[in-house]
Amino acid sequence: MLEERIIKNGRNLGNGILKVDGFINHQVDPLLMGACGKELAERFKGLGATKVLTAEISGIAPALLTALHLALPVVYARKTKPITMPDQVFLTLTPSHTKGRTIELIVSPEFLAEGDRVLIIDDFLATGQTILGLVRLAQAAGAEVVGIGALIEKTFDGGRALLASIGVPVEALAVIVSMQDGKIEFAPSGS
Amino acid sequence: MLEERIIKNGRNLGNGILKVDGFINHQVDPLLMGACGKELAERFKGLGATKVLTAEISGIAPALLTALHLALPVVYARKTKPITMPDQVFLTLTPSHTKGRTIELIVSPEFLAEGDRVLIIDDFLATGQTILGLVRLAQAAGAEVVGIGALIEKTFDGGRALLASIGVPVEALAVIVSMQDGKIEFAPSGS
Repeated sequence: MLEERIIKNGRNLGNGILKVDGFINHQVDPLLMGACGKELAERFKGLGATKVLTAEISGIAPALLTALHLALPVVYARKTKPITMPDQVFLTLTPSHTKGRTIELIVSPEFLAEGDRVLIIDDFLATGQTILGLVRLAQAAGAEVVGIGALIEKTFDGGRALLASIGVPVEALAVIVSMQDGKIEFAPSGS
Repeated sequence: MLEERIIKNGRNLGNGILKVDGFINHQVDPLLMGACGKELAERFKGLGATKVLTAEISGIAPALLTALHLALPVVYARKTKPITMPDQVFLTLTPSHTKGRTIELIVSPEFLAEGDRVLIIDDFLATGQTILGLVRLAQAAGAEVVGIGALIEKTFDGGRALLASIGVPVEALAVIVSMQDGKIEFAPSGS
């Protein structure tokens, strides 16, 4: 369903950039996102997760709907510290290849703690740097990462290899193996 | 249900600032948010809305779950223009009283157009400035605003009066009339 939508409404902008702002970020199709959240929840339901973790902004929708189906709280790492957050926080720096600069990911110690079993959900698994930043935040809190899920994986950005050392299941709903020559080519079957 | 949660987990930080980052922003309770989305959808279902509009970041969760119950697409105005967005955009400036500076709200003309009937949903109705910015974006696109909903209203910030001239239904699920002396005082019954 997600693959069909990418074929129909996604656009290959070149340089490995996939435009999906008609249904995933900017404009969101809640029914598609609900179906994706349900599928991700199904794939990770046996892991005993206690919390879903993502990064603002575009991770919020998929993580929220996965968390809804798992009946778990979801925490989204902030990129700027709001005035309501305590001064002592977990903070990590991560390179953003779509923004071309380093961004901060910040989580309050109020909402991530030792004993938490963390399921990380994001919209994209590309270089894996944002997800790796979330892994560091969870580890800084003494929590354990138990799974990593994304809506769309771009295998040619190498994120899965980067995350392999963490030793947890990594799932993506739509796996893109090539975006060369203006095409969008998917892996033969699921992830 | 939302009022009970505010009483239990909300905190009055003074200066009219309500800390709700344990269940609305930063950490989100998807089941509470789902119930709020369902209730907002119920209140606005007769208006023939074609699109839900909100502002990133903390508007995304309530707007998404309202849109899910109405089976409508949701658009969140961006505060920075992503590289996937066209160069010609709808942009408005709005003062942020929690950030103490002016922020940009940006919507792509791809996702907001003449003929759209727009339901605006946000987490807070305080000064009303962010919501008014969203109204301007909808109007710039030639769309019609048909309703405005928020999870929490702070009546002492005067937003409802500011929005009255738009002449559409304004609904809030939890209405706070005073935060003086460290208390959180609700309106007698609903909005």
